Amino acid sequence: MNHRAVIRSLGIVMLCEGAFMVPSLVVALFYREGDAPAFLITIAILLLGALLVPIKPPKNGLYARDGLAIVALGWLVMSFFGALPFVLSGSMPRFVDALFESVSGFTTTGASILTRIEGLPHGILFWRSFTHWIGGMGVLLLTLAILPMAGAGAVHILRAESPGPSPSKLVPKLAQTAKILYILYISLTLAEVVALLLAGMSFYDALIHAFGTAGTGGFSNRNASVGAYNSLAIDLIIAIFMLIFGVSFTLHYQLLRKNWKSFWRDEELRFYLTVVALSVAVITWDVLRHQLLTPGAALRQSFFQVSSIITTTGFATADFNTWPALSKTILLALMLVGASAGSTGGGIKCIRILMMLKLIRREMTRMKHPQIVQSIRIGGRQVDSEVLHSAVLFILFYLTILAAAVFLVAMDVQDLVTGFSAVLACISNIGPGLGMVGPTGNYAAFSDFSKMVLSLCMLLGRLEIMPVAVLALPSFWRRVSI
Amino acid sequence: MNHRAVIRSLGIVMLCEGAFMVPSLVVALFYREGDAPAFLITIAILLLGALLVPIKPPKNGLYARDGLAIVALGWLVMSFFGALPFVLSGSMPRFVDALFESVSGFTTTGASILTRIEGLPHGILFWRSFTHWIGGMGVLLLTLAILPMAGAGAVHILRAESPGPSPSKLVPKLAQTAKILYILYISLTLAEVVALLLAGMSFYDALIHAFGTAGTGGFSNRNASVGAYNSLAIDLIIAIFMLIFGVSFTLHYQLLRKNWKSFWRDEELRFYLTVVALSVAVITWDVLRHQLLTPGAALRQSFFQVSSIITTTGFATADFNTWPALSKTILLALMLVGASAGSTGGGIKCIRILMMLKLIRREMTRMKHPQIVQSIRIGGRQVDSEVLHSAVLFILFYLTILAAAVFLVAMDVQDLVTGFSAVLACISNIGPGLGMVGPTGNYAAFSDFSKMVLSLCMLLGRLEIMPVAVLALPSFWRRVSI
Repeated sequence: MNHRAVIRSLGIVMLCEGAFMVPSLVVALFYREGDAPAFLITIAILLLGALLVPIKPPKNGLYARDGLAIVALGWLVMSFFGALPFVLSGSMPRFVDALFESVSGFTTTGASILTRIEGLPHGILFWRSFTHWIGGMGVLLLTLAILPMAGAGAVHILRAESPGPSPSKLVPKLAQTAKILYILYISLTLAEVVALLLAGMSFYDALIHAFGTAGTGGFSNRNASVGAYNSLAIDLIIAIFMLIFGVSFTLHYQLLRKNWKSFWRDEELRFYLTVVALSVAVITWDVLRHQLLTPGAALRQSFFQVSSIITTTGFATADFNTWPALSKTILLALMLVGASAGSTGGGIKCIRILMMLKLIRREMTRMKHPQIVQSIRIGGRQVDSEVLHSAVLFILFYLTILAAAVFLVAMDVQDLVTGFSAVLACISNIGPGLGMVGPTGNYAAFSDFSKMVLSLCMLLGRLEIMPVAVLALPSFWRRVSI
Repeated sequence: MNHRAVIRSLGIVMLCEGAFMVPSLVVALFYREGDAPAFLITIAILLLGALLVPIKPPKNGLYARDGLAIVALGWLVMSFFGALPFVLSGSMPRFVDALFESVSGFTTTGASILTRIEGLPHGILFWRSFTHWIGGMGVLLLTLAILPMAGAGAVHILRAESPGPSPSKLVPKLAQTAKILYILYISLTLAEVVALLLAGMSFYDALIHAFGTAGTGGFSNRNASVGAYNSLAIDLIIAIFMLIFGVSFTLHYQLLRKNWKSFWRDEELRFYLTVVALSVAVITWDVLRHQLLTPGAALRQSFFQVSSIITTTGFATADFNTWPALSKTILLALMLVGASAGSTGGGIKCIRILMMLKLIRREMTRMKHPQIVQSIRIGGRQVDSEVLHSAVLFILFYLTILAAAVFLVAMDVQDLVTGFSAVLACISNIGPGLGMVGPTGNYAAFSDFSKMVLSLCMLLGRLEIMPVAVLALPSFWRRVSI
């Protein structure tokens, strides 16, 4: 382990976070609601990160595990200091709560311990939503830099031309690719802000909801989430932008380069849109079958909710807790599936589910004709069996962690649906679940222990498990290991 | 597809079932409760199977898919005719109900649509439980004959010396191995009958409960299941025999040959016993923590319930529906894990979970040190990567089918816990679940559609999915296919 390099990087992370906090300070100063000192103090503390930057790392460079440590610890450090303004301003007096909210923000989850959101200072709510936007940027970079090392579907997660699965090959292109991604991210966010303004939202609210959409986070400054605006235009704008931010950014780049063909022919995109269309159709039918809504309202609400859940955003325009069992089951399944790889969304990711389904189909053929050897193709290209097996193993690891966390939360939470959906909503970075943690509920009533478990789930899910999980291996921290 | 050979085999299956029905006829004649004619008519119909036996199959022999068709259709034919006595005797007037009960019997599930069991004719209840015992024998044979074709952990599922993974190699030994297995099965059943008689059970009840234990089925002739006897001795005897029948029969054969070492060193056995011990400990603690029972009762009930659920038997001495959330969550997890491969139990099977955990651990090491290549060993022997990947793919296929069935059942059943646990309890061949289908409930209130879906789940789970799933492929039925 290259300890010096890791510590130095964390210093840089602190300085960046200090810079990220400036816009919230400006908002706080503008609205004069007493939260400015909380930001000033936190920024002052974060500037201490400058003391770590001069530490010179040894020359032997960074290994995979150094990268993992930087990512996982970086997210922890960001969350830790990000919680300070919440505590210092008195908005969330208990540190466990503030940390939960901060982790939930940076991991773009959107699970909240707040029982009342309206009435909190504008600066604080701005920072709360801005953490989503920062988290979304972090995830985009992460996809580029870390996933290829894991080998988990690298070739397919990065669809830009010819980046090999080895990290060394990527590095020269990394800076340039990151720049393109960030330009796309910022442009799409601005486009949503403009659209929301045109639909009649205030500038402040438009920023808040654009941050929540771009990061697929889901924090709103309204108790009733997007439902508070009761506007068809706003519902549609946010639903469509959620779907856009759930698509791989490398595909958006293809669009930018006018590669229409490679955009629409992308198999993950087609799978993602098919799942969305089917889910909307079945939920609309199910809600109408139970005569809960008019056809128009059923279609509008199910489209919004499906977009919100599959992209792991978590905004709500309806209390889907009151929907019939089939609709709720579909939403739970979408929570597990998640968005496309290479987007800001969480969950298992469509590409892995697609790979799994193709493997299952091959296994069925093999059962019938044991002698036939079939290769698996995605988008016409043959997929390496290592990549396929990493993908299915990831799904199983994801489910194993999910099960383990459900055990831990079940020690406190007596309702099985609440406990299970809370863990699922946190590990897949969605936010609202079912039962007590439904769209009209929150995580306030959970014990501190459960809140810590759920915070860990958010981090595990966000970083696609491995980078966090390996930190638990004692051998990981040895200076020299095998 | 060798249609003639398949039809001929089904004729033989019918004749066998006719013979299997004779003991129930004898019981019916002995108790004179009016159910004898139902058995006589059914046996007469089954004798028509003799007309199919003279059909001469073409000489080109059987292929894998013929074997699959025989197994899957054989189970369906058995269940179909097995339901007739229930309908004809008037015990279950509706055929859908009788078929559900019969499928539940042969697949050794033990899910019942009966709202009152006591009061039904002795012959009918004998047949109901005897189907478990026949099903258990069928599963033992299946493990030997079919699983090796699937390649799903063949080497490890068959731990007898040197049976290769190819089916042709096994055939010469099959008859002999089957004989040994059946002797073991019958001896263990008799041992349990004797033990239960010594504990004070009547001969009839002892047979019923021994059939239910041996096949890991779980039908009782008492409304309150094993709890009705309120006897520590009976609880312990059944709990221990359930655990015994949940162990691979090839391991029992090792015991018989006094290979103590290879018995105790078996990694799947150790895993299975560790899971049992841990689950009993945590559930006892959880139940005590909520002050629901005295320490003695907590230990006794949790030991019985853990044995019953992990072996997928489904007998009950307590209404675990009223237990706290952690205990219920553990029981749900055990339903998924299931018994050992090569036993009469259902579920995913311990060996596959063990392989999955080892693969996950390897993936974590690989994340840290991408250059290291580690082989996976079970019981000291290296496991082929094909076998490992088949095992993990099986788990994912299992979960996919589970999810699909949960969707279908959610169309009728509004309680998520009832719907999910019903599907899980059926696909893993357990019987009782949680909510409405808990130990004191039953499946009577489900719609016909849900009953058919759940019957299919029982068959899919029992035949380890593939043999049933491939029947759904249209190409499977073509006379000549690729």
